Amino acid sequence: MKYVTGARCVKCGRRYDAVPDLTTCECGGILDIEYDYELIRHDVNKDALSERRLCSMWRYREFLPVEDDTPEPPLRVGWSPLYDSARLCGELGLKKLYVKDDGLNPTASLKDRASSMAVAKACEAGQDTIACSSTGNAASSLAGNAAAAGLKTYIFVPERAPKGKVAQLLTFGARVISVQGNYEETFELSKAAIDEYGWYNRNAAINPYLSEGKKTVALEIMEQLGWEVPDFIAISVGDGCTIAGLWKGLKDLKGASFIDRLPRLISVQAAGCYPINRAVRDNTPIEPMEENTIADSIAVGVPRNPDKAMAAIRESDGITVEVTDREIMEAQSLLGVTAGVFGEPAGVTGTAGVKKLCNEGVLDKNCTVVSVVTGNGLKDVDNAIRFAGEPIKCMNDLEELKGKLFGGDR
Amino acid sequence: MKYVTGARCVKCGRRYDAVPDLTTCECGGILDIEYDYELIRHDVNKDALSERRLCSMWRYREFLPVEDDTPEPPLRVGWSPLYDSARLCGELGLKKLYVKDDGLNPTASLKDRASSMAVAKACEAGQDTIACSSTGNAASSLAGNAAAAGLKTYIFVPERAPKGKVAQLLTFGARVISVQGNYEETFELSKAAIDEYGWYNRNAAINPYLSEGKKTVALEIMEQLGWEVPDFIAISVGDGCTIAGLWKGLKDLKGASFIDRLPRLISVQAAGCYPINRAVRDNTPIEPMEENTIADSIAVGVPRNPDKAMAAIRESDGITVEVTDREIMEAQSLLGVTAGVFGEPAGVTGTAGVKKLCNEGVLDKNCTVVSVVTGNGLKDVDNAIRFAGEPIKCMNDLEELKGKLFGGDR
Repeated sequence: MKYVTGARCVKCGRRYDAVPDLTTCECGGILDIEYDYELIRHDVNKDALSERRLCSMWRYREFLPVEDDTPEPPLRVGWSPLYDSARLCGELGLKKLYVKDDGLNPTASLKDRASSMAVAKACEAGQDTIACSSTGNAASSLAGNAAAAGLKTYIFVPERAPKGKVAQLLTFGARVISVQGNYEETFELSKAAIDEYGWYNRNAAINPYLSEGKKTVALEIMEQLGWEVPDFIAISVGDGCTIAGLWKGLKDLKGASFIDRLPRLISVQAAGCYPINRAVRDNTPIEPMEENTIADSIAVGVPRNPDKAMAAIRESDGITVEVTDREIMEAQSLLGVTAGVFGEPAGVTGTAGVKKLCNEGVLDKNCTVVSVVTGNGLKDVDNAIRFAGEPIKCMNDLEELKGKLFGGDR
Repeated sequence: MKYVTGARCVKCGRRYDAVPDLTTCECGGILDIEYDYELIRHDVNKDALSERRLCSMWRYREFLPVEDDTPEPPLRVGWSPLYDSARLCGELGLKKLYVKDDGLNPTASLKDRASSMAVAKACEAGQDTIACSSTGNAASSLAGNAAAAGLKTYIFVPERAPKGKVAQLLTFGARVISVQGNYEETFELSKAAIDEYGWYNRNAAINPYLSEGKKTVALEIMEQLGWEVPDFIAISVGDGCTIAGLWKGLKDLKGASFIDRLPRLISVQAAGCYPINRAVRDNTPIEPMEENTIADSIAVGVPRNPDKAMAAIRESDGITVEVTDREIMEAQSLLGVTAGVFGEPAGVTGTAGVKKLCNEGVLDKNCTVVSVVTGNGLKDVDNAIRFAGEPIKCMNDLEELKGKLFGGDR
């Protein structure tokens, strides 16, 4: 990996060689992959990137911690659309709001970026089995990406995971363990089993390469914006790994001089579960919280990656905001009606936060904001149904229809 | 529209000017859009296409029936991945099988191609409301694409449409009418209402431009294959419009000399509803059939576009094949496990047909086949759950897990 110089613990600063099955530091801290920015800058620039025909996260090869000859995993992950939604801007009264729809990834969430990386690194490590625990999206993305590459998977999900997500991963042939307990217990059992059997570990807070996959969402946003740095990027936060990856991508771009300043992050959590935002605001250590939100993908009471996430929010001079389940579902509808984007509850939580900050006057109307939609609404149809209302029921009779549509007087 | 010469009735041959709100011929026949292939060939070639950075169906502008200045609709439709799945080939014993995953479109089905075109043409016609009837995918794709463009929609769905699809279109802000009856009655009511209110008509068998949107799947397949024509393209068939669009795209490419021969089509219908295949095989007029299949998107007992579909199958020297619901769900699993592709029942029906033809020895092992997956499995999770089985339930206890995974003796 000629662009990677090593890995460094974000807690104690200890350095490690970037071996394929790298996990956490001896001190328990999480590692960060470090690059030779000078060499990246020497080998690739914006013009060269723009010429590349590869429309996936792997177009940013120089920024990724893989060997030159590591094959791209089979599924086409990334290069999701960035929509400039004038109608959504109008609704919120913002000058410019872009929506990055990461629900259009192969298994319908941003987590495909991490799973694609996990598959690449497992292959480098010569392993044929990958395991993880997840509230659902990391799981299904691992199942799909691993299946396409011919790798076996063991996947630990908490019992409350929506059945759509479970069906998806069973269809991909994963061995699925439904842990009778919360996310914390699910994580613990996966860790014990991974230690016992030596499977490749795709737990995002353990394996430092996964953030490097997730960071590609930042690389794409910046290239799609023509390298014009927005004022804010808003994203939903659960475990903390995604916002950490987003931030890492931005810092790498700045390190390699692809951008000259950094945007501020907007960390949006559910009002029913916001341990990271609370710790940032109160400047206190992370404390467990209950998991009371319909946004299951970010219902993480004991975040596994608070250090990197909190550092990202602080370093970026970020904003923290919480939104209720109702505000989340209103944002789902708002995105659908104005932008044609259907996100799952956790997927639209970032947009809910932007809306709230606009309403509260926290965001300047003249600022430019990017909101990342992290998962597809089809992942959790029950909640969509519950909030979307019911269709108009009608027999095959035009007069009946007229009455129901226009009260009969048109 | 400098590349369009007009429209011609496929039944009586009468020619029409290609106005934006074109519908059917006076004789009741469906129209086909005709192009000046010479001019297309003069203005664009394979090399020029390959240089285009636009990764959507609109990269084929010269092959599409829109004015030069008609804006692309906002949602990014098309340029779905074409996977070369060696493991799926291995399972089926075929030399080469490609999977085109059109479930990765913005609203998760191939129908987005037609809806993107409908939005473009409605804007050309200066209309602000579009209506359609649909078993679901045409509906949700219209709702999403129209919402992003700021157009109103009235959508007629049969009562059996899966709730995921209904939720999706309610979230897009569509006015949804759930018709208490089958697809036929749904279509009739939509037609009556469209006539009454003058809405733009996005019923695929009425509006000849929609096939032109759908045909882009063929254009992409051929460009992604480097213009090497496969022996067969397999696709599920319901209303008949999709296979007709696929064939139209192939013929347009041949007309403009982008390819020098045509593949044979494999028309796959459900064993519980196959009026088009029956009519082709028996060489009889189309007769209504019951709609007995879980593949709801192709459960069409009275197909609205049999003429073009049957002509496509016959002209291509095509193969017709029916598959049972069980074979469909086995194909869903096969695609998931070997290719990491999760398709809805109707979406994987094409692959089920390929598998059946391989098993029966109809397909030569040395042939090259493309199978189009027309919709995402997340659209119909209930059936996926029913066939995918259940996860392993386990407490947070490694010993219990060991017992459940390996019978305790490993």
